[in-house]
Amino acid sequence: MKILHTADWHIGRRLNGTDLLSDQMHVLDQLVEYIKDEGIDLCVIAGDVFDRSNPSQAALELVNEYLYRINIGLGVPVLAISGNHDSRSRLDYGSRWFEKSNYHMRTSIGDILKPVVIDGHHFYMIPYMDVLEAKQYFMDESIVSHHDVYRRVTAEIRNVMDHGARNILVGHMFMSDAKASDSERPLSIGLSEEVGTDLFTDFDLILLGHLHHPFAITHDAIFYSGSLLKYSFSEVRQPKGFRVIDTGEGIECRFVPTESKYDLVHYKGSYDEVINEKVTFPDKNAYFKFELTGLETIKDPMAKLKMIYPNTLELRPVVEVRENSMSKVDVNRSSDREIFDAFIEQVHGSELTEYQQGLFKQLFKGDIDETD
Amino acid sequence: MKILHTADWHIGRRLNGTDLLSDQMHVLDQLVEYIKDEGIDLCVIAGDVFDRSNPSQAALELVNEYLYRINIGLGVPVLAISGNHDSRSRLDYGSRWFEKSNYHMRTSIGDILKPVVIDGHHFYMIPYMDVLEAKQYFMDESIVSHHDVYRRVTAEIRNVMDHGARNILVGHMFMSDAKASDSERPLSIGLSEEVGTDLFTDFDLILLGHLHHPFAITHDAIFYSGSLLKYSFSEVRQPKGFRVIDTGEGIECRFVPTESKYDLVHYKGSYDEVINEKVTFPDKNAYFKFELTGLETIKDPMAKLKMIYPNTLELRPVVEVRENSMSKVDVNRSSDREIFDAFIEQVHGSELTEYQQGLFKQLFKGDIDETD
Repeated sequence: MKILHTADWHIGRRLNGTDLLSDQMHVLDQLVEYIKDEGIDLCVIAGDVFDRSNPSQAALELVNEYLYRINIGLGVPVLAISGNHDSRSRLDYGSRWFEKSNYHMRTSIGDILKPVVIDGHHFYMIPYMDVLEAKQYFMDESIVSHHDVYRRVTAEIRNVMDHGARNILVGHMFMSDAKASDSERPLSIGLSEEVGTDLFTDFDLILLGHLHHPFAITHDAIFYSGSLLKYSFSEVRQPKGFRVIDTGEGIECRFVPTESKYDLVHYKGSYDEVINEKVTFPDKNAYFKFELTGLETIKDPMAKLKMIYPNTLELRPVVEVRENSMSKVDVNRSSDREIFDAFIEQVHGSELTEYQQGLFKQLFKGDIDETD
Repeated sequence: MKILHTADWHIGRRLNGTDLLSDQMHVLDQLVEYIKDEGIDLCVIAGDVFDRSNPSQAALELVNEYLYRINIGLGVPVLAISGNHDSRSRLDYGSRWFEKSNYHMRTSIGDILKPVVIDGHHFYMIPYMDVLEAKQYFMDESIVSHHDVYRRVTAEIRNVMDHGARNILVGHMFMSDAKASDSERPLSIGLSEEVGTDLFTDFDLILLGHLHHPFAITHDAIFYSGSLLKYSFSEVRQPKGFRVIDTGEGIECRFVPTESKYDLVHYKGSYDEVINEKVTFPDKNAYFKFELTGLETIKDPMAKLKMIYPNTLELRPVVEVRENSMSKVDVNRSSDREIFDAFIEQVHGSELTEYQQGLFKQLFKGDIDETD
């Protein structure tokens, strides 16, 4: 069976106030095309389809449209769970009708022991749940971390699972040797989010969402698909795409990169080289975050940058610090004049002109002891 | 075919701040029971399932649950349209999956010429649309009122309909000899809302939502089901229930009343008779709106009323106006003392005591001419 594994679509997400719906459609078109062309048998979405618990109408329409294309248009079963960004009730709305078309949207802890069984594969769908919720659900006071939650969840499943079947867990969590980027909303405050890989040895395959880096973890059976797009400037260097898993003899998993409509670029340099195009970028329409020196005397640099790079989203001024920023003057052993000269040189990068020296003398007159 | 016709559920509606979800469930339970017991073949919901375009999670769950019971639980087709309170996108979410189970949620003008055909009955589903929208959709500048909208809609349908079939229109509008209550949100401002009955002669049956009174219109073929509950104190005297239409030889339509969990009561009288139970009500737990006299000297009357009538929602003080409220004293021809006496009698309903008369004399001394 060929499984396409994706997660963290975050439909409705905005980047520095910019709407990303058309960017998201651009990638989802590739994903749908791939499912069609490559004969994918099943699509797994490991949480955070929406970015907010209360998605906009446009976001709802987009998700509705693409899931329709995959599930009804192409007739491919869809197995999805809710993530920490999703609202369970909203995702659950209509789910009992969806099931009849093999679109399984699982949002309830109450269903974690009922695998979706397709073609000898048992998919244990574990929607995101927080520590308090799991503690109450299992009435288990020993649950105080996310690791505890999944210790309990996997123990429960172990009791009922068919160990002869191919068992696949779909979840939305922070696996322990994975690193979080800026755009994964913290799962909890004050409680450890990390879940150890050792809990999942009963499963042949663990397909995850939450972390946006598709290579956030290196493991034979545990995979993140990564997010649909780069959703923060901390993800600039992350590849984006989806995973395809072939469960033939063994399990083969590979990452399929997608092409973004616009890339994210974080550039650090000088205003001069950017505005005068002394540095070139593959796409001037990329979403730029600039950290630039030389902005001190520029009026409205953002507007000027947008003339060339229309999708500039962020501009941070960098105050140029000269290499020898530490003063070479020992204030205890130098005259006031020496201190002043050193200061002027440090700030302006040049010595006082004769005229300036004259002014200095005039202003400070006898107040400054030149020889001390 | 036995059709159950309902509308204006307004799930999520609050009455003077009070949540009505359990009241709504109480009535929906009766509706589902009726469908089961009476062998209803089809359920029509003529708009405003939700009260707001952005329903709460509890409202979403409730609608999801009852539509599931009717459509999948009992296997009864559901034909529904969006009303002016609903958000189209939200209602449309999942609708293409619902269709596969004969749950047809129609929210788009683009679909009005595609009837849902069930057992020789052609259901033209007309979601609520406003004047501007219809004008743009049909590119017809002559559309300036709701009547114009439906003139165009019915003309369009007339061109394509099978006149030999049984044609049923499902809509959400204000039919012209119908009267609006407080809780039907105005469809538009500054444009006539009323739609004439003469436009619908091509249809065997017109099943409507929007007006909350089930007998808002008297017509052989045009029916309102009325709302699920009394949603404002202006609806106190309205029966609530649903309609059952039998389309055998002819068309038989009857109204089936439902029982509310708590009734709405609007009582006008005195505080004394209410608080001392000199007047009795069938259910002290009803939702009361009291308009009472004699509140002037009562401290926190609302709290006291709630001790007996816990679901009191509204209390309006009524200042008792005596029958002869016009003063009999001609101020131009009476002494100040006569004017004052008349005033005291009017306000207190009694003459001054001797002690008060003494006080009066003392205070006004010679300033008041008693004989003028």
